[in-house]
This record gives sequence, structure tokens and C-alpha cells, in this order.
Amino acid sequence: MERPATSVDVEPPVTVQGAGELATLARILPRLPRGDRTELGPGDDAAVVAAPDGRFVVTTDLMVHGPDFRLAWSTPYDLGWKAAASNLSDVAAMGAAPTALVVALAVPGETPVADLEALADGLREACAAMAPGCGVVGGDLSVSATLTVAVTAFGDLEGRAPVRRDGARAGDVVAVSGALGRSARGLDLLFRLGVDHEGVPDARAAAALRRRDPDIGWHVAPTPPVADGPAAARAGATSMLDLSDGLALDAGRVARASDVVIDLSSSLLGDDPAAALAGGEDHSLFATFPPDVDLPGGFRAVGHVHDRAGGAPRVTVDGSEPGEPGGWDPYRLWSGARG
Amino acid sequence: MERPATSVDVEPPVTVQGAGELATLARILPRLPRGDRTELGPGDDAAVVAAPDGRFVVTTDLMVHGPDFRLAWSTPYDLGWKAAASNLSDVAAMGAAPTALVVALAVPGETPVADLEALADGLREACAAMAPGCGVVGGDLSVSATLTVAVTAFGDLEGRAPVRRDGARAGDVVAVSGALGRSARGLDLLFRLGVDHEGVPDARAAAALRRRDPDIGWHVAPTPPVADGPAAARAGATSMLDLSDGLALDAGRVARASDVVIDLSSSLLGDDPAAALAGGEDHSLFATFPPDVDLPGGFRAVGHVHDRAGGAPRVTVDGSEPGEPGGWDPYRLWSGARG
Repeated sequence: MERPATSVDVEPPVTVQGAGELATLARILPRLPRGDRTELGPGDDAAVVAAPDGRFVVTTDLMVHGPDFRLAWSTPYDLGWKAAASNLSDVAAMGAAPTALVVALAVPGETPVADLEALADGLREACAAMAPGCGVVGGDLSVSATLTVAVTAFGDLEGRAPVRRDGARAGDVVAVSGALGRSARGLDLLFRLGVDHEGVPDARAAAALRRRDPDIGWHVAPTPPVADGPAAARAGATSMLDLSDGLALDAGRVARASDVVIDLSSSLLGDDPAAALAGGEDHSLFATFPPDVDLPGGFRAVGHVHDRAGGAPRVTVDGSEPGEPGGWDPYRLWSGARG
Repeated sequence: MERPATSVDVEPPVTVQGAGELATLARILPRLPRGDRTELGPGDDAAVVAAPDGRFVVTTDLMVHGPDFRLAWSTPYDLGWKAAASNLSDVAAMGAAPTALVVALAVPGETPVADLEALADGLREACAAMAPGCGVVGGDLSVSATLTVAVTAFGDLEGRAPVRRDGARAGDVVAVSGALGRSARGLDLLFRLGVDHEGVPDARAAAALRRRDPDIGWHVAPTPPVADGPAAARAGATSMLDLSDGLALDAGRVARASDVVIDLSSSLLGDDPAAALAGGEDHSLFATFPPDVDLPGGFRAVGHVHDRAGGAPRVTVDGSEPGEPGGWDPYRLWSGARG
């Protein structure tokens, strides 16, 4: 049938429900990285991944719409990127090199398939940027009222012992690689300015803000220093941790696990030490090193480890107790019913 | 203050939101099995699991309230059990012995912590029953409007090649281990009788039904023959699959991957061959074996593999095409807004 030259075709987007699981997967799978360690990829009951040193590191993390992100602020590409980044960072924090991810998605039926393609692109590009050779080897796709991304990530220790939280020793240098407080600053801007007149998250306001301030992009799609994890292990790091809940809170975990005092120097925490201490979700790396070590990669000293000398294991700043840092709960002010 | 002797204390249950993440985890973690292959368990950024033959098998699966289960019909213990069972079965279907699970939960804030303890008990007892020595090595806990259970499971191939879907050869015996159609029959009973007068899922009706009919318990907490997966691999199985979508549909996957005809014998499919062909979620094992093999464990012959002789790869029953089996979508009649 001939169509009038003036017609404009506006096709509704193909949704997950409309396309069905198999057709949706057929569009997603080719976009995912195969990975250097993948012996059998997606398509069977399970995948097979190489574990050259006879062990593998594994971590899992859920991102839930509402408590963990808002689609008005994060694009589907951002979601895929951040889901990969936060898990790759946990693998790196053990001193392991990431080898593979599996990704399970639960999405509303009306989600456009194109959104899941973009999410797959974010996963792929995040792996390429932070852990080249890391593959997405399997997954699952379900329908849910609540958009949920579950990533499980694997790593190879390359023959080394895992770097745990409990190995910091008096005399060690405390060091950090990666940003401190940028993600929290970006989120604070979104809460204040990425909303409409009624305080509801607004995609247009967020996009305008993102063009002006790079911390917005850092919050929704951070680039943690993944390669510095294995580098720290090779250099002899005595403890290491992914900074997901803010420096003060996370350093406290290492202090308690290692039964030491961790003293941070405010002069080494950048322009805004309070923000560096409190802000979560940078997924930077915190590590302690013996005093004679040349700090590897992007690590810079931020303090020292001391004996607790009869006191409680704790974090101090310039030798004094800081104010009590609360738990990092970025969306605590947020009602589930909003936006 | 003295209380009158007649007072009855009815404490509201402690919820996840009330207890907070750390206190909730402190109550769950001690209930989980450590596992024989666990080198480092929960508590750090990631866990470490042994992979003795230098590879590991991995599969992931989401269970979402609504599309996959209803709390009126499944107890939290059932949920934990089924989440473990369905993933252990996918590992077994590669011919691997399960070694570990990680479990990520997204739950409404008002969920009682006791429910998560029961879910942990279900995970533990399912591992003990189907895969002794398999541990739960890590996880994540988030708040969500939609109860979601994401399990990732790992297995050890013990030096063997993975048993894939594409290895069935003309002349092979087709065999099955485990129930066929019981889970679907149980779900059908729940849809018809486990509801109140308005058709809404009803816990009391479902509990009464469960006491009368064992297929209800099989649907909400099946016990697939996990040990028969490695046994089939040792016996020389040429292909294998977890039966999650019904025998006809899943056999078709093997037929297409292997480019063969799979002929099933209705006389070998029990009292109700139609139910055996169509019913999903038994998580039984489908496998093909060379003709001279003594079938291991609980496997029994249900048909043969033939050359496709110029025709399409397909499933036949007694030599003829069966009616087209639809995809297994157990809750397809279900509105998300109901119960």
C-alpha cells in the first residue's frame, strides 16, 4: 500500500513483554563481551569460566530502583556501567583481577528492549574500560514491577592470598586510590537540583545538571581504579576494602577487623575533608601498606595505622575522634512513592 | 512498673527496616552452611571458593514475587529451598557437583527478620538434602517494593568436559531422572483451590490443600535429583538439560542444538503423558546416553534419538508430531494486582 508522502511513522517501542524473553535475549547477548576466561558462554544451563589458580573470588550485589537508583537520573547505559563498576571494584578489593560477570535482570514488562540493549552496552563498555578481558558469561531475565539488576562478579587471585580487611598492622601507611566524596556530591546536587518544582526527580533537570557538573556523571556511572586492586596486592598491601560507604565508616571496618587505630590526616583528604570522610559510592580503594612500600598505581597516602594501646579499635582524624559518621544510605530522604 | 497478671504481651515482629541491615545479617549468616569448598566466606568484599580442576560452572536465576511465586502459597522456607534447588539443578545439568551459592535478597522493609531466617533455613536444608558440602558463601540484602531472590550457583566439573545440549547423537537412549508433571499439577491445584471466593491466593486454603496433596509441596519446594547430574556425566551422557519448562519444550532445545530427532515413548511417561510433556518446574534431569550404557542413579529410558533424515530437528511422541507445546509460563493467567 502506498503511503502519503506526508505521513510520519511513530512506532511504539518494542517492549520486553511484546518481544518475549527469547527475542529480547537475542538482541542483548551479541552486545555482551565474551571474555578471555570464558570456556562456555551463555546458552546452556550454566557457563564455564577458567579459574587458573584453582580458586575464584566471587561477590554479588543488587541494584533496586528506588533505594539504589532512579531512572530519571540514571540512563539504562549508566545502570549497566555502575552495576559492573561496583562489582568489579569488590573483586579488585580482594587483590583479584576480574574474569567474568553474570547479570540477572528483573524488569517491568513495558520496558523497551532498546533500554536493555543500552544496559548491555554499559556493562560491555565498563568491562572494556576497567577490566579488559572480563566477560559477561550468563544471566537471567524476569518480569517484575520493580526494576532490579543483580550482578555477580568473579576474579582470579593469580596465585596470591586474598587481601582481607583484617591485616592492617601498626606502622602501616594508609592509602587510597580513586575519588573521595565525588559521588556523594553528585547525588546531593541531584537531590537539590535534579528535581521538578514539586521535588520529584526530573530527567530534563538532571541532564542539564550533568552537562554542567562532572560529579553527576561520576555518581551515576563511576570509574573506580579496578586495576589498582591487583597492583596493591602485588605491592604487598596488608588490608584492602572497596570504599562504598564513605572513608570514615569503611576505615572503621578495617580498624575493627584488624584491631588497630587508623589515623587519617585531614590535610591529605583534598579540598573538602568532611565530604571525603562521609561520602559513599565512589568505589575507590582503601588499602594499608608496610611503611617501606612504594605506593602503586593511583594510591596516595592519607594516614597511618597505630596500635590501639589499650583503647578501642577506631578511626581518628589528625589524632582525634571525628563526629560519629552515620551509615551511608543515599536515598534515606526518599519516599518510595515519589518519582 | 508492675504489670497486671492478666496482660498478654503481643510484640510486633522485628522487621528488616527496624533491625537494619547489619543486625539482620547477623541473624541470617549463622544459619547458612559454610561449605567444603569455601576458602573465605561472608564478611569481606568478596568470598573465595576452591575450583579444584581450574574451572568453575556458574548459573544465575531470579525468583520474583508475582511472576515466579506467591507468599500466600510458598513459605519463606519454601522460597529458600526452591531458589537453591532450581540453581543446584542447573549446575548438575552440566555434569558438575555443586560447590557454593551466593544469594542476593531484595525485600520490602516491613518483612519480618524471622522470614529471612526461615529463608536461610530453606537454603541450608536444600543444600544438605541435595548437595551436601555446598556452602552459601556470600550475598547481598537490599530493600525493594518487590520481594526478589537472586541466586548464583557454582559447581566443579571434577576434570570432565561439561555436558552440553548439543551432544545428542542418533542411536542414543533418551532418559529422565526425577518427577515429570508433578510441579505443574501442584500449581494447577493451587490456582483452582488455593484461593478464596474471589480467586485471590489464600494461605489458609493453600495450607489445607498441601496437607492433602503432596504435589503442592513439590511445586513450592521440589527436590530435583542433583546427584544424578555428575553420575550421568561419569556414565558418559552425551547431552543433558534441567527440565524447567516441560519435557516437550526442553527436549526440543536438545533436538535443535544437537540437530537430531528426539522420539519420546508415551508408554514410558507415566500415568499422564500429556502432563509429563507439558508441565514445567520439576527441575528433573533430561539426558541422552550411548545405547550400551547402564543408566545411572534414578535415570529411566523415555525414548530414543534418531537422525533427522532431511527433516527439521524436532521432538516426536511415538513417532508423530505432538501438538505444539507453548512456552511454560506458570503465572500467565495472573494479574500483578492480585493477592
